[in-house]
Formats: sequence, C-alpha cells, structure tokens
Amino acid sequence: MNPSHLNGPVLILGTGLLGASIGLGLRSRGIDVVLADSSPSAQAVAVDIGAGRPLQPGTDLEPELVVVAVPPDVTAAVVAAALRNYPAAVVVDVASVKASVLAELQALLLSGTAEPELPAASIPVPPGVELTRYVGTHPMAGRERSGPVAARGELFTSMPWVLCPSGDSSAAAIKTAQSLAIDLGAVVFRFAPAEHDAAVALVSHLPQIMSSLVAGRLQDAPAHALSLAGNGLRDVTRIAASDPSLWVQILGANAAPLVAILEQVRHDLDRLINTLHAPAAPGARLDLAQLISEGNAGQGRIPGKHGGPAQQYAWLTVLVDDKPGQIARLLTEIGQIGVNIEDLRLDHSAGKEMGRVELSVMPNRRVGLVEELTDRGWKVIL
Amino acid sequence: MNPSHLNGPVLILGTGLLGASIGLGLRSRGIDVVLADSSPSAQAVAVDIGAGRPLQPGTDLEPELVVVAVPPDVTAAVVAAALRNYPAAVVVDVASVKASVLAELQALLLSGTAEPELPAASIPVPPGVELTRYVGTHPMAGRERSGPVAARGELFTSMPWVLCPSGDSSAAAIKTAQSLAIDLGAVVFRFAPAEHDAAVALVSHLPQIMSSLVAGRLQDAPAHALSLAGNGLRDVTRIAASDPSLWVQILGANAAPLVAILEQVRHDLDRLINTLHAPAAPGARLDLAQLISEGNAGQGRIPGKHGGPAQQYAWLTVLVDDKPGQIARLLTEIGQIGVNIEDLRLDHSAGKEMGRVELSVMPNRRVGLVEELTDRGWKVIL
Repeated sequence: MNPSHLNGPVLILGTGLLGASIGLGLRSRGIDVVLADSSPSAQAVAVDIGAGRPLQPGTDLEPELVVVAVPPDVTAAVVAAALRNYPAAVVVDVASVKASVLAELQALLLSGTAEPELPAASIPVPPGVELTRYVGTHPMAGRERSGPVAARGELFTSMPWVLCPSGDSSAAAIKTAQSLAIDLGAVVFRFAPAEHDAAVALVSHLPQIMSSLVAGRLQDAPAHALSLAGNGLRDVTRIAASDPSLWVQILGANAAPLVAILEQVRHDLDRLINTLHAPAAPGARLDLAQLISEGNAGQGRIPGKHGGPAQQYAWLTVLVDDKPGQIARLLTEIGQIGVNIEDLRLDHSAGKEMGRVELSVMPNRRVGLVEELTDRGWKVIL
Repeated sequence: MNPSHLNGPVLILGTGLLGASIGLGLRSRGIDVVLADSSPSAQAVAVDIGAGRPLQPGTDLEPELVVVAVPPDVTAAVVAAALRNYPAAVVVDVASVKASVLAELQALLLSGTAEPELPAASIPVPPGVELTRYVGTHPMAGRERSGPVAARGELFTSMPWVLCPSGDSSAAAIKTAQSLAIDLGAVVFRFAPAEHDAAVALVSHLPQIMSSLVAGRLQDAPAHALSLAGNGLRDVTRIAASDPSLWVQILGANAAPLVAILEQVRHDLDRLINTLHAPAAPGARLDLAQLISEGNAGQGRIPGKHGGPAQQYAWLTVLVDDKPGQIARLLTEIGQIGVNIEDLRLDHSAGKEMGRVELSVMPNRRVGLVEELTDRGWKVIL
C-alpha cells in the first residue's frame, strides 16, 4: 500500500455537495466509502450516484477515516460522536471555519456529551476520547451550489484544501487528512485554526460582505440607473448572489476575526466620507489618491495563476459578433499564433448584438498578438 | 447628407485616449477632424495615428461640433472658451461627471471669464455666449488606459454613451451630440445631469470605492493568507487596479451623490458590525440573512446581456489542461453542440497546471450540454 494514500474504508457523515463529492472522488480511486446522512433522501441520492454504500446500523465498521461534512453549527457535535464511536479512526471535518469548531469540540469532550451521528440526542462521551485523532480541514471549493445531485468527484481538483491541526493532532492523523486532500487532487495548505479563520475572513468573508453591501444598494435604484451598469459593477457584485442560509452560518461562526477587519474598513470609510464632505479642502485630493493607491498596492499582492507570484498581465479587448462559434474561432486563431491566454472575460454591458472579449496575456506577447489579430481582420481595442 | 450623421468638420480639444479614439472613429467615416492638445507631443501622436489634422492657429475654422475631451477639472473652462471661439458650433464634453461641469460652466459664463483652449490664461467671455449650443455627454468606455497611443476607433462600439442636456440645450444641439455617439457605434442614453451623476455614483463610483477598500486591507496581510485567494476576491478587487489620478478627479467632482450612498453603506456596515459583536444574540441570524438576501435582490436587478432584462444564467465548470488551444477546443465543441455561451471565466485560484473554465448558458441548455461534454470526455463539475 502506498502510505501517502488512503486505504479505506472511509465513512462520510453528511452527503451534501461536499460529502457526496468526496465519496465520488474516493470511489473513483477504488476506495471503500460508507455514507450516512440524517436525511434518508440525501443519503439515497448519494448512494445512487455512486458516492458509496449506505451505513448499515448495527454492523461493525472500522473506518480508517471519518469525514464529517455536516453544516457548521452541528459539526463539533458530530465530530465528537465520531471520535467516540470509531475509536481507531482519524476524524476530519470540512467546515469553512475552524477555531470555533475546535473550541466547541474541546468543550463537548470536557463536558462529556456529544450528539450521536444520526438521530439528534445527547449521549455521554467517555473520558478516554482524545483530540489526537481529530484534524480540522477546509476544502475551498463548491460553495455556490448544494446537495448531492450537484456532486462531482473532480470538485476539489487543483483547489486549495487547508489542514488546520490543533496542538493535540497526532502526526499520523495529519498525514491521513493530507492523504484525503491529495487523493482528491487538491492543493494542500497548512494553517493554525485561528490563522485560517483570519485568512478566510480577509480573502473570502470580507469580499462577500462588501459585495452584498454594494448589491444591497441596488435594490431601490431606478431601473435606468442600472442600465448603465458595466463590468466593474458586475465583477464586484457577482458573489452577492450567494446563498443566505450558508453565509449566516459562516459569518456567525467567524464573527471575531471578521469584526476586526470590518472595523478597519469602517475607519477607512469614515475617513473617505469626511473627505468627500469637503472635496475642495486642502488635503482632500491626497486622501482620495491614497484610498485608490492603497487599493492598487493591495490588489497587486494577490497571487497570480497557479499560486505563483502576483503577475500583472496585459489586457486587450477584441470585438466579436455575438454568434455561437465566434469566440471559439478567436481563441483557435490565438492558439495558432502561439500565445497562451492567462485570463478571459466576456463583456455584456453593451446594448447591441456585438460582444467584447477581454483577454489577458503575458505583457511581452501583447503587441505582437494585437498586430497578428489585426492582420487577420479582428477588431482589437486598447 | 443624412441628417442623423455628422458632416464635420469636428474639432477635438484634448487628444488623450478618448479624444484620439473619437478622432479615429470619425476619420474612418470620412469626417474631417481637427485636433488640438495643450501637450504638443500628445497632439503629434494623435495626428500620426490618423485621428485628424492639427489645428493651425490663425486659420479660420468653422466646426460643426467641438468635442472637449480634457480632464474633468478643466472641462468647464475649455467648454466656455469653445462656445466663445466657435459661435456656430455645438460643443460637447466627455467628462465622467456632469452636474458639476454644468454648474461651473454656468458660473463661468455669468462671470464672463473662460480659459482659452490652448495656453492657460483667463480671458473675457462675451455676454452673448449661451448654453443652447452645449450638451454634456459621457461615453462609458476605455477608462483603464490613457493616452492617444491606446486609442482605437472602435472604443465606443456597443458601449453606453449618455447624453445629459441641460434645460438650455437646443434640440439641434442634442441631435448633433446624438449623431456623434451614433456615428461611433455607441448605444445612446439620455439622463438629466444630476440623474446621471447619481446613477454613476451608484453603478460605477460605489463599486470602485468598495473594491479599493477591500484591496486596501490586503496591503499588510500575511502572504500565506493571500495564497487562499479565490475568484471571489479576484472579482471584487479587479477594479481596485484603477488609476488614482483619474479617480481623484472623478470622486472629487461627484462628491455629493457619492456621500449620500456611502452614508447608507456605512449604516448597513454599522448594523452588521453590531450584529457580529453578539452573533449568538436573538435576531443576529436574521440580520445576517437579511444582509445577504438584500444583496441577492439587488444583484438580480442588474440587467443582462445587451441591456436586456436581468437573466439568471446556469453555470457549469469544466476542467481543462492549462495548454494553449484547450479552451479554444472546448468552445469549438460547444459551438458544434449548438449552445451559445452567455458568459465565461477562467479560474486561477488553483495551484496546479489544470485550469477551470466557468461557463454560463441559458438554464434550459445546461443539462444537455453537461451530458454532451461528458460524453466527449470533458470533466464537467457542478
């Protein structure tokens, strides 16, 4: 057996999108997967799509690994029950906040109660259950949809999977958690739980909140004002379409790190509002320039493609007829020219049957590409 | 002559990106274009790329239209001078804020002084100069780059061009301004100046500020936190890369409508911070759900492709090797299947040499497309 991979069986508690996708991915590697969900229909769907076999109550199961993939607010209780019920297994969870789950789990183990994995009633946890076998994890994928129907084994391919061992986690447990992420094709990161929560507050929860705040202002806007919406507004508000029920749990569970960042944002916003109340006052221009410049500096720190260093790509815009096949033809010709496209967007702020394709390429390829495309009859802008 | 088109000559004052692009676009329609810029080198570049012929001081010119394309803070003065110097011409400007330019212009005409179009010294405006020949306009295109080198005649194709006549603007002047936008392929909108400024404060300036505020928080973040950045953060902060010197002028000139919106945002942010200080308090979950739900509602009001009604497209994600030609092959096959792509994004949050292409299609085409692509060997997620 390859020690860096799982052997199974793996028990998955909770067969929503994440649990069912983990099951599918592991099954495609030939690993024995057992599934359980408090919703019989969700469990049946997950079994039907091939994510694993159903847990048979009363039969002996000695899983190598238990994956807890239930909503954040019941995660700690289900982890505690799994640690008790499967005394030889490593237990991981996949909740998107980590410090509060760990704290709740520690409190549950100290108090000696835990939820059973299926029907909900508190039962005692023996004092011998320790945290050595538990590793908190966070696969950063697939938050937009939910339910086992949307599950795919490739959900985690190339996406970050953060391991957040506590001080109690054993080296063997961490290795098993890592094997899970690697077997599913993810890119493994390792953070302390509090460090993880501060990081996702900044790179995930803050943008969600700011996007929702901008979009919220559009609710009562005149329709003709919205007719001027361009790609800037569309980009900023794209994630404002997220699921409220999921985000209520995430924001509530990560309140402390989030408040710390939001209070800094409020400080910056207060300063800006004061400046705009007297835009002709001495120093006002400098204040406004600083706001935008600080944004330039921060934006430039976001890592580039494939987690490499931040990279400023060169953009160009090409006009295309809005017909099937036009974009494919453009990209085919760019491939023939031998230039790799780093990023690509379609622009729909327009009011005519003409599309704008924005492409980014390595800066040293831009001029040549513009010339080649122009020679081939494409209308290239900027 | 077709009365809905310009006859020329058109005098363009200011040959940056917008002025030079307008010149190129009009030249390609065979219209006589005359250029002037306070920077001799910018003017020479614009002439060299074919945007028009240089203004010869001392010669008689009777332009049909004068387009003022100088920075916002000198726009009113240059418009006043143009109204005086070319008593038969319609004068438009292209500044991205409109009420403050109009107010400043009215004040200048009342006080009887105006900047001349080239060297900078105040000279009297005769009392007879009236606002009937002036129409403020705002072409919403091409803000990311600057200078005549980046100019393209197609810059305005399919993009909004807002006409903001004052109460004094004559019907003939409005028609000439509209002909300019139509000749350049733009989609014409008509707003009152204050209405325009409130609209762009909401759909353009607010997203810029919120994007800059989020990105500003990344300045001092640990690099490992930024390694978890996904498409959500990238989307929200994309426009944070904007040019500070331009935005200082825009924000300063539109301060009043902007402050009104920002104070509403601060109210929402205050409420959120209070809620997150006590996330377990009664009502906290409802408050958080309301924030996200209001964002859902506002985001859903943004008009769809080609200015049509808001449309919820169905998204799917396809895994591709990160090699030139792969995306073209995918899009070619989607074209063969006969499905039109409504939107498309590449995902670079990954750490491996595997790309994720997110596609949106009409909801009723999604299931069939997923099946067809899967049959053809593509790995489709979600």
